[in-house]
Amino acid sequence: MAQTQEASKTAGKPIRCRAAVARKAGEPLVIEEIIVAPPKARELRVRVLCSALCFSDIHFWRLKEPHGYYPRIFGHETVGVVESVGEGVEDVKVGDTVIPSFLAYCGECPDCISIKSNQCSKLRFELSPYIRDGTSRFSDPKGETIYHFGYTSGFSEYPVVDISHVTKVDPALPASRACLLGCGVSTGNAICFDSCWHNLIHFELVRRTYFTFSVKTADVEEGSTVAIFGLGVIGLAVAEGARLRGAKTIIGVDMNPDKVEIGKKFGVTHFINPRELGGKLATTTLENAVFCIAVILEMTDGLGADYCFECVGLPSLSQEAFTCCRKGWGKTIILGVDKPDSQFILNSLVNNHSGKTITGVQYGGLKPNLDIAILAKRYLDKELQLDLFVTHEIKLEDINKAFKLLIEGKCLRTVIWLDQERASADGVTFNEI
Amino acid sequence: MAQTQEASKTAGKPIRCRAAVARKAGEPLVIEEIIVAPPKARELRVRVLCSALCFSDIHFWRLKEPHGYYPRIFGHETVGVVESVGEGVEDVKVGDTVIPSFLAYCGECPDCISIKSNQCSKLRFELSPYIRDGTSRFSDPKGETIYHFGYTSGFSEYPVVDISHVTKVDPALPASRACLLGCGVSTGNAICFDSCWHNLIHFELVRRTYFTFSVKTADVEEGSTVAIFGLGVIGLAVAEGARLRGAKTIIGVDMNPDKVEIGKKFGVTHFINPRELGGKLATTTLENAVFCIAVILEMTDGLGADYCFECVGLPSLSQEAFTCCRKGWGKTIILGVDKPDSQFILNSLVNNHSGKTITGVQYGGLKPNLDIAILAKRYLDKELQLDLFVTHEIKLEDINKAFKLLIEGKCLRTVIWLDQERASADGVTFNEI
Repeated sequence: MAQTQEASKTAGKPIRCRAAVARKAGEPLVIEEIIVAPPKARELRVRVLCSALCFSDIHFWRLKEPHGYYPRIFGHETVGVVESVGEGVEDVKVGDTVIPSFLAYCGECPDCISIKSNQCSKLRFELSPYIRDGTSRFSDPKGETIYHFGYTSGFSEYPVVDISHVTKVDPALPASRACLLGCGVSTGNAICFDSCWHNLIHFELVRRTYFTFSVKTADVEEGSTVAIFGLGVIGLAVAEGARLRGAKTIIGVDMNPDKVEIGKKFGVTHFINPRELGGKLATTTLENAVFCIAVILEMTDGLGADYCFECVGLPSLSQEAFTCCRKGWGKTIILGVDKPDSQFILNSLVNNHSGKTITGVQYGGLKPNLDIAILAKRYLDKELQLDLFVTHEIKLEDINKAFKLLIEGKCLRTVIWLDQERASADGVTFNEI
Repeated sequence: MAQTQEASKTAGKPIRCRAAVARKAGEPLVIEEIIVAPPKARELRVRVLCSALCFSDIHFWRLKEPHGYYPRIFGHETVGVVESVGEGVEDVKVGDTVIPSFLAYCGECPDCISIKSNQCSKLRFELSPYIRDGTSRFSDPKGETIYHFGYTSGFSEYPVVDISHVTKVDPALPASRACLLGCGVSTGNAICFDSCWHNLIHFELVRRTYFTFSVKTADVEEGSTVAIFGLGVIGLAVAEGARLRGAKTIIGVDMNPDKVEIGKKFGVTHFINPRELGGKLATTTLENAVFCIAVILEMTDGLGADYCFECVGLPSLSQEAFTCCRKGWGKTIILGVDKPDSQFILNSLVNNHSGKTITGVQYGGLKPNLDIAILAKRYLDKELQLDLFVTHEIKLEDINKAFKLLIEGKCLRTVIWLDQERASADGVTFNEI
């Protein structure tokens, strides 16, 4: 009720609020007062509760032109409450709890109708600096345009989001867990859970989705060997999923020795640090790769892993994963987000007539508008692990500390609270970093 | 009975016989008298009836060192009658009709037992110049070693083959059709037929194979769009398979204008000649690709084809196929055989998070020892088209004409008869070329 009243005061008007603005590539964000225009038709404005920092934010924050746009507001793992809506918005109403998503759902195109795709072909995903209509709702007090990111921009207090990029969620879900579902955890976890979905499916539309997963993604089999390249949040979520699917051997590859213990918590059975090349430190990427491939082949009787997941976003690592992948039936799944225009090279004859498959999916192949609700229910039913991923909770003004932590590999997810009143109500203890 | 008597005369002894020997890379084969040692344990010697010329023979005949080995006997689409057997051969006996295969089947390893793989992990496929035990059974009268090819060497009258590389077939199958099942036609056709196998499956082991196909290969859906890059025998067999699976649009891409009419016979509904760039001739590979991609995208509402088959063996064409492949669920299947060590490049971000899949299989993902019998039965039941592929039949001494025809794109399959007595009995009229 309070939220509806708030909406009535600000609906249709610009809002002055705070945001963490990236002014230049790779430079600390600046907490600024910005102006957010009201939502247009089929848009809504969201009062953000909290957002988590994903490595993709860092990835794109590092990019200079032509793919970097500044000033810009990042943040794409976020949850909030609808503050006001534009014309034609019927599916959500003021006061609803929503998760904005970087993937759209028009509900009409062949992809949205199909059980096989999460790539809306009417509203395609692009590395756009705007929201869906190709304009920005953000400006600074001098009138300068501030760019959006991922159609979400959760590091501002009141982003405007197109209705096609929004999913309504159960408000019972704690905000600091809900925001995680917008990207990394879902991406990693979903891809291992394909054939299990039927356990929690209760209605027709979602039952159809189950078949999608079993056809197009990893569908990890019981007793299999899984190699995970990169034990960030996506990789750890893959490990957890693989464990729950009954994988016998879960090999985690990471250059950060702290990930040995963290990996165990999520199901990693064997750890490889590619820097430790037979006792001495590898000094080049090639040495890393050679060592890693040799170890994985040795662990798998020379055959390779049944499933290889690239969870970092490096072309060289995709190649390495594909090389480590088992002939005959091995699947390599690329989940890490790469730089625009980067390329990777495959040896045609050796690898490409071997029955190996390579595929890459956004968001683990999930459709946000259908599947976030399922993931939320799984968490509330204590089937899905979210709590372990939240290692830090901080206030918006400390956001640059979150960047530092993630870059240094010292956190999994840092939740950044924009609504401190809600944080207090949720009993959050902010971390001193 | 006659064959058994023949075997009794020559069993255990070297045989002097004819073969078409490749003495140097890319130079005409020489019809020579060679000496074939008797089979060792777990080997058998085959009296070849006829062999067909596949483009892979030409591909490897063109290779210089280190991947080319000379003198060498090519030929890997072949059929013959067992002349004699070495110790421990129990599954086939003298007089049986057999098809040698470049893929082995040990029957014991995880791959042979599995329904998911045709890549025997005990007896791996390699570009070996020997038969399975790592030695040659061929020499010339001066004692010089002559190398094998593809574990088969069907351009000799009496190759020795390891038992793991042999499939027994119904002698009712005409020899000039049987030989085709050893490579190209099976490779192309099999990949489209996956879910249809159950129509002709009668025993448990083979029923299991059905599931393999539906999981790992194209599994073309009714109403879908298929793009086939290269309308050689593999590509045409893919077209036929796609038509029988109910594909709505079958786009054939070939630089040979003669393939317009040939393609129609096999189900191609739209033909693209990438050399015809908007009316003028394309002069570079890049121009070819740009034109071809543009046309396929235009034909598919900007989305791309649901299934793209690379049937030539060019890295650039694999890239082109993957680019033309539909986001969301598109599958690119590489069937063409590439040069050793060649590489292809994929744009990571754009293509690899789009839900597209790329895979490459040998022999269409089939297990020769299980699936050749099924293909043979389909032909005898008039379900599988083989006759249209045989455009020429010649004697061994004319083999260089077969090379010329295939290089110039003027034939599909030329059957080369080594046993002219059998050819006469089969009523073959040899082509004058």
